[in-house]
Amino acid sequence: MQFEIRIDPERLNRHIRELAQVGTLPEGGISRLALTDADKAGRDLFVSWLEELSLEVRIDQVGNIIGFQPGRGDARPVLIGSHLDTVRAAGPLDGALGVLAGLEILQTLQEQGIHTQRTVAVVTFTNEEGARFTTDMMGSRAFCGELSVEEAWDVSDFEGACVGDELRRIGYAGDFPCGQVKPSAYLELHIEQGPILDKEQVTIGAVEAITGISWQELTITGAANHAGTTPLDARRDAGLAAAKVIQYLRELAKGLPDQRATCGRLSFLPDVINVIPGEATLTVDLRNGDDTVLKKAEQQLAEYLASLVEQENVEISSRMLARVSPSRCDPSVVALIEESARGLGLAHRRMVSGAGHDAQIVARTCPTAMIFIPSKDGISHSLAEYSRPEDIEAGANVLLHTALRLADEGMG
Amino acid sequence: MQFEIRIDPERLNRHIRELAQVGTLPEGGISRLALTDADKAGRDLFVSWLEELSLEVRIDQVGNIIGFQPGRGDARPVLIGSHLDTVRAAGPLDGALGVLAGLEILQTLQEQGIHTQRTVAVVTFTNEEGARFTTDMMGSRAFCGELSVEEAWDVSDFEGACVGDELRRIGYAGDFPCGQVKPSAYLELHIEQGPILDKEQVTIGAVEAITGISWQELTITGAANHAGTTPLDARRDAGLAAAKVIQYLRELAKGLPDQRATCGRLSFLPDVINVIPGEATLTVDLRNGDDTVLKKAEQQLAEYLASLVEQENVEISSRMLARVSPSRCDPSVVALIEESARGLGLAHRRMVSGAGHDAQIVARTCPTAMIFIPSKDGISHSLAEYSRPEDIEAGANVLLHTALRLADEGMG
Repeated sequence: MQFEIRIDPERLNRHIRELAQVGTLPEGGISRLALTDADKAGRDLFVSWLEELSLEVRIDQVGNIIGFQPGRGDARPVLIGSHLDTVRAAGPLDGALGVLAGLEILQTLQEQGIHTQRTVAVVTFTNEEGARFTTDMMGSRAFCGELSVEEAWDVSDFEGACVGDELRRIGYAGDFPCGQVKPSAYLELHIEQGPILDKEQVTIGAVEAITGISWQELTITGAANHAGTTPLDARRDAGLAAAKVIQYLRELAKGLPDQRATCGRLSFLPDVINVIPGEATLTVDLRNGDDTVLKKAEQQLAEYLASLVEQENVEISSRMLARVSPSRCDPSVVALIEESARGLGLAHRRMVSGAGHDAQIVARTCPTAMIFIPSKDGISHSLAEYSRPEDIEAGANVLLHTALRLADEGMG
Repeated sequence: MQFEIRIDPERLNRHIRELAQVGTLPEGGISRLALTDADKAGRDLFVSWLEELSLEVRIDQVGNIIGFQPGRGDARPVLIGSHLDTVRAAGPLDGALGVLAGLEILQTLQEQGIHTQRTVAVVTFTNEEGARFTTDMMGSRAFCGELSVEEAWDVSDFEGACVGDELRRIGYAGDFPCGQVKPSAYLELHIEQGPILDKEQVTIGAVEAITGISWQELTITGAANHAGTTPLDARRDAGLAAAKVIQYLRELAKGLPDQRATCGRLSFLPDVINVIPGEATLTVDLRNGDDTVLKKAEQQLAEYLASLVEQENVEISSRMLARVSPSRCDPSVVALIEESARGLGLAHRRMVSGAGHDAQIVARTCPTAMIFIPSKDGISHSLAEYSRPEDIEAGANVLLHTALRLADEGMG
């Protein structure tokens, strides 16, 4: 039967546990910031596992590590991957799950003597998190040609160390050219990092889009004035205007399909208890998997701000900090994920990834989709990040069968 | 005729200009923080003017300076005053006007050969602003016995210097006992520091109450979470809850008579663009001249916070930072101010002081009222603080005639 092959859950979970020992902090949590000694130790462990399988291993110019399980032909490979770097005080699964599940797929193919038509490869992309070097998804951007190798090398951390030097220092400045591998498809297994699957008790999320992100900073200028002597109708309260924006963001999000809108940062000037704020600076994070809706959200916000200028007698200036368009996943790959979940008897649903991932970069160059598994209480980037072993196993099996189909389909 | 006597506006404005040269900052504005060298220089100038008039001068134990123009009898004196200390980068009038107008009244009485029944005295109270030593209205509190001399001496600034040492250092640690002068009435002329008189083009404010102030700090605890992956209904957004409080404050103020409600300080944790705030800390400044209304405002806010806890699924704790009950001015003294303004042909209105003043302390021990004159655009605590010379003159003349009535009335 088609769905009888299975990964080895014991082995996968052992690999996850072993990698989670690399970069542990005394106070708990894991820190493998990109290109640090801890990141090098994690990479070394991963390479040793690839070498145990006698896989062909390549390190490219920005330190992406790729292991190849050769196919019967020389058609473009199916690529599976994610990243091994972490934020500070991270959990064991964000990124690591997708890489180690990819390793597990290759090992399963070897053990079962399955010779796919296409090569199946596993990749760990350099610096997905952007927590040390702030260009996030750096490895996948260079892999896809969105970022030149030189641009990547020149990025500096806050202490002035640059990516090129740090790659050499830890021994991962490879010579395999970025852009040489042209995948036929890309798959990434990841924890959801949100509460939907956990809450709905659904095991598999078939990710049909990865959110677009629009980041703005708003500066609202009113007039700082005495909190006691200034009558209500004479106030130009920048703090009140900011409060109205924050409330509006929730209304905006409620009014559009699958819209997110968040104010994460806010500061007042002069920030004194008995002075009406004369200035307020706040950030706006808008997200949607559909660019048309995201643009509508941006426009509705702009219209609201224009009305607020009149209403509160303030000035508002807005500065775009970042904008990433949503990435649509490939419908046929999404359908294959659903088919695999169904074949394995697993509850599944389509969803939009609210977080950014390497997959959103790769999706622009080849058919791509992601598989999500539940995150307990939606928590990640935290020591409390947890997914149940049976969900990890289920996700890896869906990944296996989706990869198998992709590695043989259309090959006649 | 009763209202023919006048102060000398040239001299008063010259005194104001000369004092304004003491403590000037290179970037503009005046800084005579309490008990600094600049404050000493301002005090020295004031004492030299008192001595030119051969007045009896006393420095009390907390550095309050009192000049006495003896009356015909030994009845309790009429006291006129304010303060010479300033905030950083202040204007020339806040405090100084009331003290120098008091000096001008005494000089006018001398020149015109007017011998009042009661002694008329002028006082400058130490450290009204609380800008360096944070116990504000320190001199008037000690004068009235609300603060012991030892408590006052022990107050430290942020660098650890204490009031007692600084009084000795600048030569203003007097031996005249606090509490020895028991005024029959207290008058304070002050700029409004708000826009009402300026906007309404009314020259004289007869202050019938000095605002009560209630300061709280609210800490709202929700859950920090991913701005992209957390659905709206799973959010416990402390920032949104804080925004709702700020909007509610405006509604609260609108719904109660002469109520002020301001959020001047706000901070988020973790304060990161893509993280829903898990904690928000904000301050609330509530003011009213009527304690019943102020208490109602406090209670309505508490009820709103309780409903918000349910509505936004957050926790809210509140900490009282300060509370000063409103001071009612003495109705008969307020009536005398109105009578004087009317007699001088000046437009006048009753009002509530939204700022704190020495008068609110003294009001608890003797009949007290304040006279306000217009502040251009309501600005003070700023280089832009300005009142027109003709309004200064008008205010000083109202002060003169009110003091004259108080110094002779009920004396048979």
